[in-house]
Amino acid sequence: MIRRVAVTGGTHGNELTGVYLVKKWQQNPELVQRESFETLTLHTNPEAIKACRRYIDRDLNRSFATADLENPPNHYEAKRACELNALLGPKGAEQTAVDFILDLHSTTANMGLSLVVSSDSPLTWEAVRYLCAKVPELKVYRWRGDEEDAFVDSIAPNGFAIEVGPVPQGVLRSDLFMKTEALVYHLLDFFERRNSGEAVPETAQKVTVYDHVGLIDYPRDANGDLDGMVHEARQDQDFTLIKQGDPLFRKLDGTVIRYEGEEPLYTLFINEAAYYEKGFAMTLARKITL
Amino acid sequence: MIRRVAVTGGTHGNELTGVYLVKKWQQNPELVQRESFETLTLHTNPEAIKACRRYIDRDLNRSFATADLENPPNHYEAKRACELNALLGPKGAEQTAVDFILDLHSTTANMGLSLVVSSDSPLTWEAVRYLCAKVPELKVYRWRGDEEDAFVDSIAPNGFAIEVGPVPQGVLRSDLFMKTEALVYHLLDFFERRNSGEAVPETAQKVTVYDHVGLIDYPRDANGDLDGMVHEARQDQDFTLIKQGDPLFRKLDGTVIRYEGEEPLYTLFINEAAYYEKGFAMTLARKITL
Repeated sequence: MIRRVAVTGGTHGNELTGVYLVKKWQQNPELVQRESFETLTLHTNPEAIKACRRYIDRDLNRSFATADLENPPNHYEAKRACELNALLGPKGAEQTAVDFILDLHSTTANMGLSLVVSSDSPLTWEAVRYLCAKVPELKVYRWRGDEEDAFVDSIAPNGFAIEVGPVPQGVLRSDLFMKTEALVYHLLDFFERRNSGEAVPETAQKVTVYDHVGLIDYPRDANGDLDGMVHEARQDQDFTLIKQGDPLFRKLDGTVIRYEGEEPLYTLFINEAAYYEKGFAMTLARKITL
Repeated sequence: MIRRVAVTGGTHGNELTGVYLVKKWQQNPELVQRESFETLTLHTNPEAIKACRRYIDRDLNRSFATADLENPPNHYEAKRACELNALLGPKGAEQTAVDFILDLHSTTANMGLSLVVSSDSPLTWEAVRYLCAKVPELKVYRWRGDEEDAFVDSIAPNGFAIEVGPVPQGVLRSDLFMKTEALVYHLLDFFERRNSGEAVPETAQKVTVYDHVGLIDYPRDANGDLDGMVHEARQDQDFTLIKQGDPLFRKLDGTVIRYEGEEPLYTLFINEAAYYEKGFAMTLARKITL
């Protein structure tokens, strides 16, 4: 049984889709209420929302590593991570305050409507399969970095993030707002059907997953500053294949850098604004069926 | 004779097209050098560029009112405005350090390649007509607010701003970078031809101008917070007509607000991120021929 679900927005304060969906639901809680479980809606990073910035001191969505929760650094997001861990987690516990966290994000990349999944839990993947059956355009990116998963949704036993784009930071787009909203309602309906004991055949299908392989950084000069940009032929080509020799970057001087990898892979999160400082221009992924 | 021209970027620190074009030219000054005049390239707001924010304390591109230059408020952009006024102006003087300022901007709105012109000087409009002849997709917005023009380009006797979009804040798009670059070279070529005494027939044509009429703000709640967004049918429809009864906004609750103006007008700067805090969702303009 699913007893409590959290739908969170504003983890990045300049990703307005989640910020205003949560505002809408707090004004109209009946929209996210279902019979068999409780839905909590929450602004995770209120100070960053107020400032309309991604974060105040550090990316909140990288602040839930166990070590940081146990010995929090002295800054705003670390403290907020501990509060959220107490409110929704605690991370890794047998018994957590919520069973599922859906964290709402947007991206400047042409990612359409997509899920970022880092949990391996069976319920998480049941929900993924359900949503893919309900929303054929939905894409699934499975994140698997080297480090511990430190996302907001990692403090509950089940969950994932929605990423929707392209939408600039600090902007609301009505079309993507409504698509995100509809996806959330599908998820809540799934929990309701599952709780009722009804067979949910949509969860049985296979799904196409873009499986994390690696990251590519921009061309940079000796000072670490950008020396080029995503090539115009690669821009907006999220979820498409890149093959050896395809144009990858255009340097400021106009010269073209080509992709050198031997394996054709899919490019995701191309030219996401927030990743300039993190040092990646796009993500590489392998397309698999699960 | 044009003796000195300034091409400026980074007036808003998160509009990267201008920031990196200036970087490119400072590394390759021959690209903007011409025989008959000097070209200065300049980052106008280095602290905002470093922070990748629009501004530190106040919008630099609203900081050149004569009263502010004479009695500068005590903040970063006010001081920087005075420095720039000394370097490129002074504003309103008979003799200024540069004859023309071209200030490079980008926008999250679907403005394509466009000019924002607030100067009435004959040379400014000669240059506008030349560029429109050279680049047929170029659009011209004539800004005429109630207040004194306090833009960067107002401190020289001639000049305008380039706006290019849609591009998110903090993002470089190769396609728009190259289009902006080509436009700058056309302008420099125009000055060179004009200085040589050559007849420049391109400057004689008529131009279509979108003439400023007014601004429309978002729907807001009692606290002044957004209560809606640009309607999905109006999003990206820059330089198109809006008529009485056309959908304008979608409120958070899903209801539609329609345009009530009696005169059909053109909508520009639709859903520009930086204008949320200024209180406008779009600009209305009348299409005229000059």
